[in-house]
Formats: sequence, C-alpha cells, structure tokens
Amino acid sequence: MNILVVGSVAFDSVETPFGKAEEVLGGSATYFSTAASFFADVGLVAVVGEDFPEEHVSMLNQKGIDLEGLNRVPGGKTFRWRGRYEYDLNLAHTLKTELNVFSDFNPTIPQAYRDCPFVFLANIDPELQLRVLEQVKGPRFVACDTMNYWIEGKPEALRELLKRVDLFVINETEAREFAGVPSLVGAARTILECGPSTLIVKRGEYGALMFNASSVFSAPAYPLEEIYDPTGAGDSFAGGLMGYLANTGDTGEDNLRKGMIFGSVLASFNVEAFSLERLHRLSLDEIHSRYKEFKRLTHFEDI
Amino acid sequence: MNILVVGSVAFDSVETPFGKAEEVLGGSATYFSTAASFFADVGLVAVVGEDFPEEHVSMLNQKGIDLEGLNRVPGGKTFRWRGRYEYDLNLAHTLKTELNVFSDFNPTIPQAYRDCPFVFLANIDPELQLRVLEQVKGPRFVACDTMNYWIEGKPEALRELLKRVDLFVINETEAREFAGVPSLVGAARTILECGPSTLIVKRGEYGALMFNASSVFSAPAYPLEEIYDPTGAGDSFAGGLMGYLANTGDTGEDNLRKGMIFGSVLASFNVEAFSLERLHRLSLDEIHSRYKEFKRLTHFEDI
Repeated sequence: MNILVVGSVAFDSVETPFGKAEEVLGGSATYFSTAASFFADVGLVAVVGEDFPEEHVSMLNQKGIDLEGLNRVPGGKTFRWRGRYEYDLNLAHTLKTELNVFSDFNPTIPQAYRDCPFVFLANIDPELQLRVLEQVKGPRFVACDTMNYWIEGKPEALRELLKRVDLFVINETEAREFAGVPSLVGAARTILECGPSTLIVKRGEYGALMFNASSVFSAPAYPLEEIYDPTGAGDSFAGGLMGYLANTGDTGEDNLRKGMIFGSVLASFNVEAFSLERLHRLSLDEIHSRYKEFKRLTHFEDI
Repeated sequence: MNILVVGSVAFDSVETPFGKAEEVLGGSATYFSTAASFFADVGLVAVVGEDFPEEHVSMLNQKGIDLEGLNRVPGGKTFRWRGRYEYDLNLAHTLKTELNVFSDFNPTIPQAYRDCPFVFLANIDPELQLRVLEQVKGPRFVACDTMNYWIEGKPEALRELLKRVDLFVINETEAREFAGVPSLVGAARTILECGPSTLIVKRGEYGALMFNASSVFSAPAYPLEEIYDPTGAGDSFAGGLMGYLANTGDTGEDNLRKGMIFGSVLASFNVEAFSLERLHRLSLDEIHSRYKEFKRLTHFEDI
C-alpha cells in the first residue's frame, strides 16, 4: 500500500441543470481513492452506517482499494449530503447535511496503513487531521484539503496542521479567505509561509494553479461541452495527482506538474456523469489519451 | 501601414482597490494601437474633442501610431468614462458615461489606411463596424470585439458583421449571452457557426480560450501580485495579438497561439499601472522575457 486517505464516504443527492441523482455514492475519500486507484494502492479510512450497501463495498474493492479502515457502525446511518448546482457549476448550494455516523468520526489508522509513504487528509476537522498524523510513521509526503467552515471555525488547528503538511490543496475563495488577502498571488505567499512547500489552488472550470517558493504552474481545465455533475471534482483531482506521485515515487516539481495534469484529467472525466459512474468505467488508455489532449490544449511555440 | 484600428479614444476616471486616476488617457483604440505598436505600423481611426491635449497626440506619435484618422471635432468634448473596480477585478462598474463627440462618430477611413491587410474593429456600434468594412479593400484578416449593449441592442447588425470577420474576440459572459447557451464550449460552437473561423473568449484573470472548428487553445493569465487597473486589458490583449500577426504575416493556428501569448503579455503589463503608463515605458526585451515566463508557467512534460 502506498497511499492512505482519510475522509468521508457519503450518500449524495445532487441536482444540476442536467439532471438529478438520489442517494448515490459520494464522499471525499471515495472520489479520491477511486481516482488514485488507477496509479497506486490505496488504503481508505472512513466511517459508514449499517445502511451502506455491499455493492458499494465491492465496487471499491474492484478498484483494488483496501477497506480495512472503513469502519461500519452497527445501527448507524451513513453521512448524507444534498446539494444543487446552478449554471455556475463552480458553486455548490448545500440544501441539507446529515452527518449521522460522521459526526463521531475519530479515525483509527489500521497498522497495515501506518507505513504509507503518501498521505491525503481530505476535508475533515483539522483536529482529526492532526490526530491522523500522530498515528502514521513519518510519511514521505502529506497533502491536505480543507474548507471555509474549518478556516472560520478552527483556524488554530488548521495552522498547526499546515506546519506538518507538504502540499495544501484548496479552492480559490478559500485561499483568499484563509490568507485574508484579495490578491491570489499574495494569498499564496502568505499560505506558503505557514508551512507547506507547495500550494495548489483549485479554480473549478478555470483549472488550477500550483505555487511554491520560486515558481507558479498553471494547469487548465479540460473544456467540456457539458459538465453533468461537478461533485467530487476536487477530490478526483487530488486522487489523480497523489496517485501519480505515489506511483512514480517522485515529488520533484516537474513530477508535481505532471501529477497536476493527471489530476485534471481524472477530474474532467469525473464530472462527465453523476456519482462515480464515469470513473468506474474509465480505462488507463483513456487517461493517457486525455493527458495528451491537455498537451495540445496548452501548446504554443517558443520564440 | 499594416493594421487599421477603429474604436474609441477617451478620458477615463478609474477607481480600483489600489488607487484612482482622474481623466487619464484611455479608449479601446488607444490601448489597442499602443500594444500593437511594438510589432507593427498602426493607423488609428477615432474621434476626439477640442479638449484632447497635444501631449497625448505626441505620446501616440512617439509609438509610431499614425493619427491621420484621428478626427478632432472643433468645439467638441472627448468621450469620458468613469468606472470603479472592486476586488473582483474582472467586473467593471460603470459610474458615468459621457459620449460627447463619440455619439456622432461615423468613421471615415483615410485613403492611406484602406489597403491595410489587418483590421481590428474595436467595440463600437456594429453598424459602424460594418461601414468600416465597406471602406476597406479586401483586408486579409479582420477581427472584431463587441459588448453586451450591442448583443442586446443590435443583434442583427452584429450577426451580419460576424459573417465578414475572421476572428471574434469577446468576454466570457458575452459569449454565453450572445449564444444563449450556458456551456462555454457549446456557446463557442454556436458562435463559430455564425461566420468567424476563430473565436477568442477572454476570461480576465483566468486567461483566454481560442476555439476553431477543430481545436481549443488555453492561454493562462500571468499571475500578478497586484493588478492596479484592469482597464484596457482586453484591448491591449487584442493589440498584442494582432500586432504580432501583422508583423509575421502568418494567420495559421500555431501563429495565432503565439499571438495570444503576446497578447496576454501585453495585457499583463498594461494592468500593472493606470492608463497607458506601463505600456509607454515598456521595452521589447521585457515583452520577450515575459513570453518566456509564460512558457515556464505552462510547461509540463510529455508522458
């Protein structure tokens, strides 16, 4: 096993201009691990209720995802999220959140996962993210995500966490909010001073930017005719990126750039259908072929 | 002379989070021609009042811009625009527009300009843009801009115009509005069906996309720490692009891609200061060096 992910497994009910889906498989750890599974062996730590169906378990197993860390609470109900997207697909409107078993989530990392060289802390309470880091044995590369709720509610735990991660992956508005600086470049510098050597700012349909102390990399989003459901795009992106890094064992900047493109590829496939539908019938050939399309999409000659 | 531009020359009063400027030189034709002047010989057609100072004339002359087509109306007042930008610098809030002499603008193209192979019709009434095309002698490459005001007010003239241009350059929201399609890729296809062989969609701080029948090119914006004044970014972009095309005489896709990067370079310098301040003290060396930075900003390895 080379990647550990800690996050949510959920049932999502989603409405977009293109249709709707009721109580389909979702959650940050689900999207992340499915995307990463194309490149690496993933161990998943999350919690579900007794209502979590066997078909979802076997679908994740089919992708080679290790579920020893998936805690099934007897008599419990799985986390549910209900949301709607308007034509501006960058913005999710949360209609309802039922935390259920997720409200008592206290991740215990199985022994078999503790040596994982790559760790992804999906968007959960930063105090829990810190507790995960206490259980693992000197991972080589740690990345984390967060959201405005934690930036506002637990800024100190988040700052403590940032001292201990290599890569911080967040949305553009969250980057500005966290840093309290309207300029994105200024916000990036402020965030890098908090600890992580690399920051990735996700901009939805505008792609993503990667900042480190000396350079910036701009990755476009793949121009899709129709984005059916943007849910999970950020976690699929992180999964593709981390999966590729773990696969190659190279965390240098050039490889991070390639990883960002693989992440963008995975995210672009994911939004082509509801839930994990598209990722489940995705092949490595399709991934490679879209990577090459990203090359053509961005190519211009030297002067 | 190899480029003709028809558009506005104005006095702008602008407020941004970084400061303000009162009655400074602005206008689409001014920004366009100054940016294009680094690469090509530009003839400018516009109208100003008697209040237009000699210092502005000599500044434009210094850049080698031909002003035979700049009509100075005796007793008239120059077009004035007053606007404000919030932290979201992609959105201009117009506080006041005084058209003055611009309200009777009826462009007459000087004989010496009528053979220009490259023509840029900046954002003016599409009926006037059409009248310009009636006066020129079979230009090799015509590009035009427009705005929501004309999309809503003169859709038929605009459609007539689009049949006669090679390149249409507009903002993202305008592209969606014109096509009546929320998906940008879908909107692009609808617009290309109206006539132009190439469409460029400007996305402000997110860069620009170029669409033709068979491919898409994504150009990033240069990540600046501080954007002092976004006024004129779109016209500087078009000026850099068209100037480069006219300079090289090559309108193939590869060269259009290079042109878009030169356009992005010019736009990125322009927003570093109010009015045309930065473009006036810009050198070709700086332009080339930032072009190379765009290369580094977007580079990732093949698989």
